[in-house]
Amino acid sequence: MRDVAVIGVGMPKWGELWAKSLRDIFVEAALAAIDDSGVDHIDSMYVGCMSSGLFVDQEHIGALLADYLGVAPVPAVRVESACASGGVAFRQAFIEVASGISDIVLAGGVEKMTDVDGGAATFALGTAADQEYESFQGATFPGLYALIARAYMDKYKLSREDLAAVAVKNHAHGAKNPRAQFPKEVTLEQVMHSTMIADPLRLLDCSPVTDGGAAVVLCPLSEAAKLGKKRPIKVIGSGQASDTIALHQRDSLTFFKSTARAAQKALQMAKIKLEQVNLVEVHDCFTIAEICALESLGLFAEGKAGKAAAQGMTRLGGELPVNTSGGLKSKGHPVGATGIAQIIELVEQLRQEAGPRQVSGAKIGLAQNMGGTAASSVVHILEAC
Amino acid sequence: MRDVAVIGVGMPKWGELWAKSLRDIFVEAALAAIDDSGVDHIDSMYVGCMSSGLFVDQEHIGALLADYLGVAPVPAVRVESACASGGVAFRQAFIEVASGISDIVLAGGVEKMTDVDGGAATFALGTAADQEYESFQGATFPGLYALIARAYMDKYKLSREDLAAVAVKNHAHGAKNPRAQFPKEVTLEQVMHSTMIADPLRLLDCSPVTDGGAAVVLCPLSEAAKLGKKRPIKVIGSGQASDTIALHQRDSLTFFKSTARAAQKALQMAKIKLEQVNLVEVHDCFTIAEICALESLGLFAEGKAGKAAAQGMTRLGGELPVNTSGGLKSKGHPVGATGIAQIIELVEQLRQEAGPRQVSGAKIGLAQNMGGTAASSVVHILEAC
Repeated sequence: MRDVAVIGVGMPKWGELWAKSLRDIFVEAALAAIDDSGVDHIDSMYVGCMSSGLFVDQEHIGALLADYLGVAPVPAVRVESACASGGVAFRQAFIEVASGISDIVLAGGVEKMTDVDGGAATFALGTAADQEYESFQGATFPGLYALIARAYMDKYKLSREDLAAVAVKNHAHGAKNPRAQFPKEVTLEQVMHSTMIADPLRLLDCSPVTDGGAAVVLCPLSEAAKLGKKRPIKVIGSGQASDTIALHQRDSLTFFKSTARAAQKALQMAKIKLEQVNLVEVHDCFTIAEICALESLGLFAEGKAGKAAAQGMTRLGGELPVNTSGGLKSKGHPVGATGIAQIIELVEQLRQEAGPRQVSGAKIGLAQNMGGTAASSVVHILEAC
Repeated sequence: MRDVAVIGVGMPKWGELWAKSLRDIFVEAALAAIDDSGVDHIDSMYVGCMSSGLFVDQEHIGALLADYLGVAPVPAVRVESACASGGVAFRQAFIEVASGISDIVLAGGVEKMTDVDGGAATFALGTAADQEYESFQGATFPGLYALIARAYMDKYKLSREDLAAVAVKNHAHGAKNPRAQFPKEVTLEQVMHSTMIADPLRLLDCSPVTDGGAAVVLCPLSEAAKLGKKRPIKVIGSGQASDTIALHQRDSLTFFKSTARAAQKALQMAKIKLEQVNLVEVHDCFTIAEICALESLGLFAEGKAGKAAAQGMTRLGGELPVNTSGGLKSKGHPVGATGIAQIIELVEQLRQEAGPRQVSGAKIGLAQNMGGTAASSVVHILEAC
């Protein structure tokens, strides 16, 4: 296997992009990544997209987007792993470059979610759960994560305020990220008094419905200096794992086994210890998810990540900055693009180009992206060269 | 890159499987492939599935099927490339084994299409075309392929009878394949008098709507004798390409550039000449598609494949047997599974286990799978070891 580097990133602003179609959104992100990398062509591309069929009545997204990006006849593959689609697309691109099949591979993600109403969006997102045993019975993702939150709060005596502190922290980070959907701070009081969605989760515990795209360019590390124009960032670890699709079949509601296993595989490949990681992007689709993800990754003991945000440990400037991008919470969550956006935050941090969000001296970063209630997890570890 | 072999195949009978759900269909095929291979575990899996969101309200198919197959926590990825989803899943599995990331990888495909009515199925299939410029304007796939057929018939003076001969041939082959949805012969008269669907295409020019699954197991060729219990079949070539998503943007309606390029890439990798191929499975979603595919692959000059079936050249026993499995036409076309089923036919032929369909002394086989009107094509070449 060849060593692989990221040499270009692209992510235009996310939000409710009424004037742009799915293809517009993707092409804009992909062109930005290609421009940032300096390459004059790509050999292959992957697109993470969860449910373009239900959101915009369009499948065959790989060929469509290769065509509109103007790169046909390159091979173009869409991968779907619910909200982990972006992270999985990145992993496929990594494997393809590592294998030697292709040299310059684009990994992108996109979702156009606001062309349908809220009910239809909740239905489409619900297809990431077990339709027969969860969604068809009335469970929605806010509901499923509310069950996780209740279980955690009960087991580890977490307060509602501790949960809210995750949203406050991520919005404080996102306020420094102009591409975020909601680049503004929120107070603890605002979170605590926001509309109830699924008890105990309130509106400001939830990531929003977002239109957005993101893309990166990968190549063999040995070619990165020649092909790229910016500092290459090496992909040192990649791990992916699955778990039961339905939440009720798990031993624990609060520990994501797929995340633990994906992290273990990525760390083995990277040949580093978890303590060497300087910053982390985790999948905070709901505030509780960040807490469970940090524990499942092994960064905190079980029951110990609950107060990390409230205590300032995971803030920019804290011991281990988490979600300096603003996370899904503030940056937005166009489900297919989220995993790619996490990689982009790591790349910008490791290039020391994150501006007001810069983690001083960041050398190694880790991204954790998951689908459903962590039936899929994918973990990547990147290192500055 | 490591050499890769197929060591197991599984494909239960296809049809209108009212009593089985998507997960049942996939698991049955995957277990058959695992059993045929003799392995006691898999390291990773890929699933080709076009539109489970629109057909059965379920995305996150990779994790779901890994769970129901009982193989979680292995990484599980769903790939979608419309009707080429199966072929692309096979290619991803090939790349993963070749790269050295994983040793034993399952590549499967599945589609459950009969849970919705005919109109909804046509709509779901239409999402493989350009929704903005084709489907939303009223174009359906029978309509798009009818345009291709008209253009071909006009350009090369093909008769309606020549077109019908493709269906007659593929049903004659399918009659020898007990797993086919319609394992029975049809006559030229039956095709010529079947219901008009989209002039000039009649019902018996069209592949059916099908429920079905198929799976194969891949491993490094160097491990095949140790891991597997049957004769390993080597994957010697893999190529994939894209083209404009919309038919009206092509220079030629009747020559599939993506198929030509995918074949060229696969032949380069295989280091063989096209003349060495003993049998071919092509994507005959409509009778005209087989003709165009054979010419795009370079097996016939442009305008020369039209009479191949009528003249007996592509029949079992002819110079170059095409679609000995029965093709999509007789075997059925559960879109995500089709590309895998083509590989299975090649493996059984190259193992000399195809029974009444056996191509005598078959040593090298080629499969061509495409999405939409060939906006995606994927070509694989397999060789008996």
